[in-house]
Amino acid sequence: MSTSSRTGITLGIVNVNTSATMTQTIVDAATAVAAPDTTIVGVTPTVGPESVETHVEAALSQVGVITAVHRRHTAPITLDTPAIDAWIIAGYGDEGREALQELVDVPVVDITEAAAIAAMAVGDRYAVVTTLDRTVPMIRGRLELAGVHDRCVSVRGTGLGVLELEEDAERTDELILDLAGEALAAGAEVVCLGCGGMAGRARELSVELGAPVVDGVTAAVGIAESLVRQGLTTSRVGTYAARSPKRLSGFEELEIPETELP
Amino acid sequence: MSTSSRTGITLGIVNVNTSATMTQTIVDAATAVAAPDTTIVGVTPTVGPESVETHVEAALSQVGVITAVHRRHTAPITLDTPAIDAWIIAGYGDEGREALQELVDVPVVDITEAAAIAAMAVGDRYAVVTTLDRTVPMIRGRLELAGVHDRCVSVRGTGLGVLELEEDAERTDELILDLAGEALAAGAEVVCLGCGGMAGRARELSVELGAPVVDGVTAAVGIAESLVRQGLTTSRVGTYAARSPKRLSGFEELEIPETELP
Amino acid sequence: MSTSSRTGITLGIVNVNTSATMTQTIVDAATAVAAPDTTIVGVTPTVGPESVETHVEAALSQVGVITAVHRRHTAPITLDTPAIDAWIIAGYGDEGREALQELVDVPVVDITEAAAIAAMAVGDRYAVVTTLDRTVPMIRGRLELAGVHDRCVSVRGTGLGVLELEEDAERTDELILDLAGEALAAGAEVVCLGCGGMAGRARELSVELGAPVVDGVTAAVGIAESLVRQGLTTSRVGTYAARSPKRLSGFEELEIPETELP
Amino acid sequence: MSTSSRTGITLGIVNVNTSATMTQTIVDAATAVAAPDTTIVGVTPTVGPESVETHVEAALSQVGVITAVHRRHTAPITLDTPAIDAWIIAGYGDEGREALQELVDVPVVDITEAAAIAAMAVGDRYAVVTTLDRTVPMIRGRLELAGVHDRCVSVRGTGLGVLELEEDAERTDELILDLAGEALAAGAEVVCLGCGGMAGRARELSVELGAPVVDGVTAAVGIAESLVRQGLTTSRVGTYAARSPKRLSGFEELEIPETELP
Amino acid sequence: MSTSSRTGITLGIVNVNTSATMTQTIVDAATAVAAPDTTIVGVTPTVGPESVETHVEAALSQVGVITAVHRRHTAPITLDTPAIDAWIIAGYGDEGREALQELVDVPVVDITEAAAIAAMAVGDRYAVVTTLDRTVPMIRGRLELAGVHDRCVSVRGTGLGVLELEEDAERTDELILDLAGEALAAGAEVVCLGCGGMAGRARELSVELGAPVVDGVTAAVGIAESLVRQGLTTSRVGTYAARSPKRLSGFEELEIPETELP
Amino acid sequence: MSTSSRTGITLGIVNVNTSATMTQTIVDAATAVAAPDTTIVGVTPTVGPESVETHVEAALSQVGVITAVHRRHTAPITLDTPAIDAWIIAGYGDEGREALQELVDVPVVDITEAAAIAAMAVGDRYAVVTTLDRTVPMIRGRLELAGVHDRCVSVRGTGLGVLELEEDAERTDELILDLAGEALAAGAEVVCLGCGGMAGRARELSVELGAPVVDGVTAAVGIAESLVRQGLTTSRVGTYAARSPKRLSGFEELEIPETELP
Repeated sequence: MSTSSRTGITLGIVNVNTSATMTQTIVDAATAVAAPDTTIVGVTPTVGPESVETHVEAALSQVGVITAVHRRHTAPITLDTPAIDAWIIAGYGDEGREALQELVDVPVVDITEAAAIAAMAVGDRYAVVTTLDRTVPMIRGRLELAGVHDRCVSVRGTGLGVLELEEDAERTDELILDLAGEALAAGAEVVCLGCGGMAGRARELSVELGAPVVDGVTAAVGIAESLVRQGLTTSRVGTYAARSPKRLSGFEELEIPETELP
Repeated sequence: MSTSSRTGITLGIVNVNTSATMTQTIVDAATAVAAPDTTIVGVTPTVGPESVETHVEAALSQVGVITAVHRRHTAPITLDTPAIDAWIIAGYGDEGREALQELVDVPVVDITEAAAIAAMAVGDRYAVVTTLDRTVPMIRGRLELAGVHDRCVSVRGTGLGVLELEEDAERTDELILDLAGEALAAGAEVVCLGCGGMAGRARELSVELGAPVVDGVTAAVGIAESLVRQGLTTSRVGTYAARSPKRLSGFEELEIPETELP
Repeated sequence: MSTSSRTGITLGIVNVNTSATMTQTIVDAATAVAAPDTTIVGVTPTVGPESVETHVEAALSQVGVITAVHRRHTAPITLDTPAIDAWIIAGYGDEGREALQELVDVPVVDITEAAAIAAMAVGDRYAVVTTLDRTVPMIRGRLELAGVHDRCVSVRGTGLGVLELEEDAERTDELILDLAGEALAAGAEVVCLGCGGMAGRARELSVELGAPVVDGVTAAVGIAESLVRQGLTTSRVGTYAARSPKRLSGFEELEIPETELP
Repeated sequence: MSTSSRTGITLGIVNVNTSATMTQTIVDAATAVAAPDTTIVGVTPTVGPESVETHVEAALSQVGVITAVHRRHTAPITLDTPAIDAWIIAGYGDEGREALQELVDVPVVDITEAAAIAAMAVGDRYAVVTTLDRTVPMIRGRLELAGVHDRCVSVRGTGLGVLELEEDAERTDELILDLAGEALAAGAEVVCLGCGGMAGRARELSVELGAPVVDGVTAAVGIAESLVRQGLTTSRVGTYAARSPKRLSGFEELEIPETELP
Repeated sequence: MSTSSRTGITLGIVNVNTSATMTQTIVDAATAVAAPDTTIVGVTPTVGPESVETHVEAALSQVGVITAVHRRHTAPITLDTPAIDAWIIAGYGDEGREALQELVDVPVVDITEAAAIAAMAVGDRYAVVTTLDRTVPMIRGRLELAGVHDRCVSVRGTGLGVLELEEDAERTDELILDLAGEALAAGAEVVCLGCGGMAGRARELSVELGAPVVDGVTAAVGIAESLVRQGLTTSRVGTYAARSPKRLSGFEELEIPETELP
Repeated sequence: MSTSSRTGITLGIVNVNTSATMTQTIVDAATAVAAPDTTIVGVTPTVGPESVETHVEAALSQVGVITAVHRRHTAPITLDTPAIDAWIIAGYGDEGREALQELVDVPVVDITEAAAIAAMAVGDRYAVVTTLDRTVPMIRGRLELAGVHDRCVSVRGTGLGVLELEEDAERTDELILDLAGEALAAGAEVVCLGCGGMAGRARELSVELGAPVVDGVTAAVGIAESLVRQGLTTSRVGTYAARSPKRLSGFEELEIPETELP
């Protein structure tokens, strides 16, 4: 776990893969845009894939995310482990937001949606530049289900895997800028970086592109802070109504004790 | 595992919960509509929830389904464990089809989509009657992502949990028929039963309703048989391209050995 | 009429043009993928165009199809003319399914929709490769009305007329493969053959393309069989309610006698 | 044939059923709103149904319409049979516009689309009140394919057949006003009369409803006149490119002679 | 103000910019396609931008349009200033139609929508060729809100400002024809001229393009005439209900006196 | 103008009507949820309507908003008039965001979109409860153009005018809660307050409703802060490219001097 030193609002950011290095990159990017009274807490799953690029990996990742968040959320509150006021899930195009909304009683923000929201605030239509082509339909699907797809011109893959992004940062930036340029030519006015692992590159790429580049992690911080300050949390009247006790073979740690229900 | 005695095409049906009784109900319903040369093989996950009604449960279920199918699919072929020619995933509104399409080299059919397809073949617009209201957005989301939502008039919940369906079968039928009647009045011409656990009730309910009632399990059998006979299987050019080796902490059994790649 | 020798389920396939040769091609393709207990019966209209490529021809064809199916459906059942358990209408992008659903009391399957369904089962998004460009909007329109258009990337014309397809089979395949390749490059993962006259080429083209190629005729067979085995037939509660007697000048053979109504 | 006495622009209106009385009603309604220099020519098909309420009837009607328009369009121009400058097809929700666009070299206007256009010009959202419930999906389908469905709140059926509309005009008006009132309460601001046989009732019903009521026949007249005055006619670059010669068994009169092609 | 000499229906056309020359171009184009008994009255705003190409200019223009139409509409009726039977607002992609519908008690027609309607009447799908790229989203937005966007293939900018159109007419035509040709290649069958200032060029460009070219001003005339002859005017049951008195600081001339309400 | 005493980020909120009292209500609501280092500056237009409920008023309001923001934005920076880091436009369903995005070089946030974004973060589908029914299509239109309409179940009017909201606060709350309850019953899980004048009531209404109630003003604050901290501002590559000099009769103060262009 990685914690910045400020107090006030505490945001938990859960990485979707098991790489602690990537968690640190994400925490750093988030800290850079947080309000002065916001603390960022990074959480890395202990089970799941080292990176998420397929549906099988997304499924395994989701269990890792659920377990890690559950463990942190039910841990005793101490000075070192303050209560989390809102969670950010740092997987671009991944499942998981809905399950966390059931699991915790504070707001949950998804970086895919946060990036789209920031993009739509600063331009007419946006594009997403991501890692492998195979993740394109997953991202498009998430944007559609989230109801923020109408102004998305395209989702394009660089062909680089998540773990390859860091290998040759210069080449990665070149590939991103090439696709971003194509997207602008096709009518986009803003570009979203479609991978949690791209966090922190947005400002520099914006300058080179000559158009806003949005990173979902930094976009999510302000939305999470805002929900906390508004006192809003997940509605319990429909989809996210309280769960009933249920036998969960192999995942007993996640079971709700009978006694917990009102 | 439950096996019927016929030969020719062998279909695997994976239940999404850990109830062997429900697997048997599903296998019986499937067997009743299979071609004479089709064998139905039922598979029950050993980990996961006893029923799937929330996003947390859907996530855990998905891992159970993936693991169970992987184990069966990589087991040695014997007389008692024949090769599976196509898989049916028997969770209405659940995730999982996409991951299985990556995992196995034979066709995979989802009962949510199969029911919609059968419904659209026998009427103009259709409705879905399901279990708890909270599952309605999950089902709607699956129909949208599957691209078969345009002719769906509504998805309605009976308020009964999956495990309550069997408790008072008469009352269950009454509740289903009430909602189905309302759906017809609102413009639906066909009704889908929105839960794998409702398998086997469709014909009787059709007679009482005076309009076609479709069950996804039975609808999926013919589609799976048809894909096998056409020699079609999942495209490997995009979303479902071959997975690369990857460290899967806690799920090492699902890792692809380096040597397996061409 | 062309009849295969098997028993069990009997499927009628009505060609939309007056070419008996094309009917035979279609029956052969269907027979190759039918269940062992399925018999395929081909029907060729006696009035209508020799091929369907325009709206005028589609309208005339429809009358030919309706008349031919009505005649076959009301003919006395004998050993040589067994009762038809379901009809397949073999015109890609053509009108006609809805009228047949009113006309007969067994399921009716359209090859345009069947191809889309099979395509969506084996990949994320699909494209259609068809004959003349002018038929593109007709096909797109049918896919939209059928509610299976959301995952269609594009419909492209080879520029070849229906009757030219057979003239130089090698060139036809080349043209189809060129367009199919462009479609894959633009995001499709599966390709549908957009003409009944292309029946039988799917498997070979799949191998050459390196991605699934779907033929609507073979896709329709399993769906039709499946509807029969599920005991489903067209809903009579709305669009396809029983027709009332009506004077049909020039088409008296299709009139419903007053005495036939309950 | 029915001809008004004016000169200038000549509009042909083809009824979709074989009732000459209904043709006269339509011609009268059209004449009442035509420009001073417009002549209205009514055409009644000699083959087809006495009214169009089913898909079978729509198919037969279409052939009657095509044949009648072709005959009139290829007839020698005389003082009594002046050249037609544009055609209106007077079937609400019926097929046929596209085929006529291929057949004739002057503009063709469909009353379903014309009514929607007029309705959208005088209010935010509109509803359609039609005859039998079974025609609702046909009408909705036409509005969707025509690209004018987005602002349609609902299509509702009175339960009256086309031929019943005239039987008790007072009761017909009551039923229409009841449904129209429901539509306003549900957010419509304008109501379209969804049947060519309702032509001529719009003004009176508007007064009683307190909101605009649109009749497709009268709406189509001005659009047809406008297209003529703008010198616009059907584009020949795609869907409606010139037809090639083709054998049309049973419809030889509609065949294009080889010599006609350039 | 510019008035043609005919009587019968009187249409007001309000230019959206302050250029009297452009008003005259518009009036001439309208007059050329008006019915023999229609008089065209051109109105030029006295406040607002000299051309409309940005959202700021569109906002200022709208106030100019509202004020000019209000002044003309409340002026005493004389021989020289006859009552206006319907208004046309001649800004392509601009706001304003809705406000005028509140302001006057006669029909109001927008040239953006009118062009789309004419285009859809003479081909399957259409494109728009306009001035600066920055206006593309404004035009697309108007087509979407108007509910006539489904059949629009693309909106493309020539890069020419409104006031540059006239500078080198030959070059303007070339640029329009280039983009129009690209649009046809991409599936459009008709092209709309996306600027009021392009009025009058449609016929000539049609000939050169070999496909219909539509100008919104001329398209609007027939629709406006048609609404007048049908006796239709804006519905007052919802969006366009009568306005109540309200203090309008700085725009007192537009205030409704208390006494005017019933 | 109303200013809170904090430093750090300075947000300008422009009211859309001329009521300074309402501006104060809005500033108070914004201040309550702002980060500790955020200063809120309220701006009231000097021209325009006292409340915005019609399209005419929206048009006049827009000019008032543009002028007021332009004046504040070009005023000399002093201790009392600090530079504004981002603008919020406080009109629910109103035009204006796009024009301000052209006008100023800092981010602009619209409360209609902000409310939708917050609502989608805490529930599956949302509804809007607003003032007069006539504003419903304006709000729906804004949500559609903003690309955040897909998850909106309904927009409902209380029948109360903007200026009536304060007259009997208890009755207003009752009316809002009634409609909000209906919306939940119809599938909404969150409710947005559809008027800037309702700012400040959200928390209390949430408690009474038992589901989240979102107010657009408070929702906009965090989004604006977040854009500032991310260093994002409006893209200048398309829609919002720099404006060129243009004669603006009657609005000379808004003209861009030639010398300002690079």
